[in-house]
Amino acid sequence: MIKTDILIIGAGPTGLFAVFEAGLLKLKCHLIDALPQAGGQCSEIYPKKPIYDIPGFPEVLAGDLVDNLMEQIKSFQPGFTLGERAETIKKLDDGTFIVTTNKGTEHHAPVVAIAGGLGSFEPRKPLLDNLKKFEDNGIAYMIKDPEVYRDKKVVIAGGGDSALDWSIFLADVASQVTLVHRRNEFRGALDSVEKVQELKNQGKLNLITPAEIIALNGDDTLESVLIRKISDAKEEQVLEVDNFIPLFGLSPKLGPIGDWGLEIEKNAIKVDTFDYQTNIPGIYAIGDVNTYPGKLKLILCGFHEATLMCQSAFQKIHPDKKYVMKYTTVGGVNGFDGTKKEAPKAVVKKIE
Amino acid sequence: MIKTDILIIGAGPTGLFAVFEAGLLKLKCHLIDALPQAGGQCSEIYPKKPIYDIPGFPEVLAGDLVDNLMEQIKSFQPGFTLGERAETIKKLDDGTFIVTTNKGTEHHAPVVAIAGGLGSFEPRKPLLDNLKKFEDNGIAYMIKDPEVYRDKKVVIAGGGDSALDWSIFLADVASQVTLVHRRNEFRGALDSVEKVQELKNQGKLNLITPAEIIALNGDDTLESVLIRKISDAKEEQVLEVDNFIPLFGLSPKLGPIGDWGLEIEKNAIKVDTFDYQTNIPGIYAIGDVNTYPGKLKLILCGFHEATLMCQSAFQKIHPDKKYVMKYTTVGGVNGFDGTKKEAPKAVVKKIE
Repeated sequence: MIKTDILIIGAGPTGLFAVFEAGLLKLKCHLIDALPQAGGQCSEIYPKKPIYDIPGFPEVLAGDLVDNLMEQIKSFQPGFTLGERAETIKKLDDGTFIVTTNKGTEHHAPVVAIAGGLGSFEPRKPLLDNLKKFEDNGIAYMIKDPEVYRDKKVVIAGGGDSALDWSIFLADVASQVTLVHRRNEFRGALDSVEKVQELKNQGKLNLITPAEIIALNGDDTLESVLIRKISDAKEEQVLEVDNFIPLFGLSPKLGPIGDWGLEIEKNAIKVDTFDYQTNIPGIYAIGDVNTYPGKLKLILCGFHEATLMCQSAFQKIHPDKKYVMKYTTVGGVNGFDGTKKEAPKAVVKKIE
Repeated sequence: MIKTDILIIGAGPTGLFAVFEAGLLKLKCHLIDALPQAGGQCSEIYPKKPIYDIPGFPEVLAGDLVDNLMEQIKSFQPGFTLGERAETIKKLDDGTFIVTTNKGTEHHAPVVAIAGGLGSFEPRKPLLDNLKKFEDNGIAYMIKDPEVYRDKKVVIAGGGDSALDWSIFLADVASQVTLVHRRNEFRGALDSVEKVQELKNQGKLNLITPAEIIALNGDDTLESVLIRKISDAKEEQVLEVDNFIPLFGLSPKLGPIGDWGLEIEKNAIKVDTFDYQTNIPGIYAIGDVNTYPGKLKLILCGFHEATLMCQSAFQKIHPDKKYVMKYTTVGGVNGFDGTKKEAPKAVVKKIE
């Protein structure tokens, strides 16, 4: 059982910054995220894209913002449960919570802060019979370890950056890569599109367009897919493959959190702007996952919400302590690892 | 008459960031500040001090944060009325406002956003007869142009960084610099204290401690000050001077804004957290100057408040337009100067 002061669900920028504000109050944090790394959308969807509306950054790549936040919170030593999705929550008699993930990891904390962004990103799946049967037996929607595909026959479906980039990458790993897309046109970074064109010309990549996969065959594991051309003739061909990777994008879903008894409005969790607490005392919601009158789904708003949430969490965890806010410029930052950052102090010195 | 969409009173970090958020909504801003430069406290009080709680900056000097914000808003071409204090406000029949400064400069806007921080920083003044008579006739509380003191006999009073730094600087400019302080000990950066000690040893600076100035003499302009030693003997001496510069620190005052009919609580302006509007429709208050349940006087909170304020201001200025928020990562930033910043676009391209 993992124990912490504030259990943060979602390790995007808002959840990460909450660790810093909690740390100033000497509260420890642990973060759960369904994605395999911290940073949320910023890391998973657009790490190389610039953001222009983070205050103080005329321009910052989303991935760099996450790196900066990780550096900023480092001395507060947050814990992480990554690649697991928060599934159930139980309120104990003493008012504390136990949150369990889809893999059974249990977390115990007096305060839970949901910083779940737009929800956990679920892959969009093709509508095919037998799909479920082959999941983890030949079909995957995300590539976690490319080595799984070494010397395998792989078919990728999709027309965006993920499909292009993984086709390029696996062309050197798999024994055969086939890219299937419903259109002749691909949408992605110019150099990715050009690279796929080049691999195709060199015969290192098999391209079938406009076409779609309409059936899956195999006994226990996937053995072949049926591909149909999108044309008047509708020619079909059977392609023997070991793996089928449909990359049709990710779609955010509130997921199991939607069943926790929280007041939901337009797929977001209703909170009070006093402290961003939900209708369940002790459960807060910050960042894109929450809603209130005037709400804007911006990273900078999540930073503010995380900060006010921590003040309220402190009161809940230490009802008898009075916290007097000190500016970091005055009080410095005292890390849990013994480090201290502080402004150079003025001296008091006699001049004779 | 200066005309703008949003008139921002206070050019600290919150006021500056409001220019950016307004710019995204194609609203123009003009800022008034009593200080001679933008940046508020960050520039005036602690430009060289690190701040640790700006999200995404593990550490940033206050002055650098201001520079970054100025760069971020540059393409939205804000106007500035600096070195003047907003004094009076008048609501016209059409609901727009005219704000006039202490120097008579008039500004006309449909929306006023007070981002006044802790108020305008007023110098702490010594309690001396004739003080007012010699203001601008030998006495100054801030040094705007050091050349004014070339070849003059100057007495500085105070024991902090300002007194130390200006004594050092003017030692090379004035014909004679005397530093008077109530204690023998000075409080400031180590190298400033050491430098003053060195100048004193070299005879380039006259140091009188512990002592205070107890009287001012002169006909139209200041001619001499009376200095009394703080000791049992209480020796007194008359020092002939052209200029007396008491540097006893700055103290924030809400000032004339306090008389604008706004609801005030604990020296701050009450606002609604929906859009940070005050009790007077069309007047908003953002950043340290406002108060609401849960308020924290942090720069990052001011950024959030500025952002929500701009959305409401947009509705007020364009009641018939519907604004659909676009992320800067998607929509880019279109400057009023014709510049455009945007993420590299995906291409849609056929692979044959």
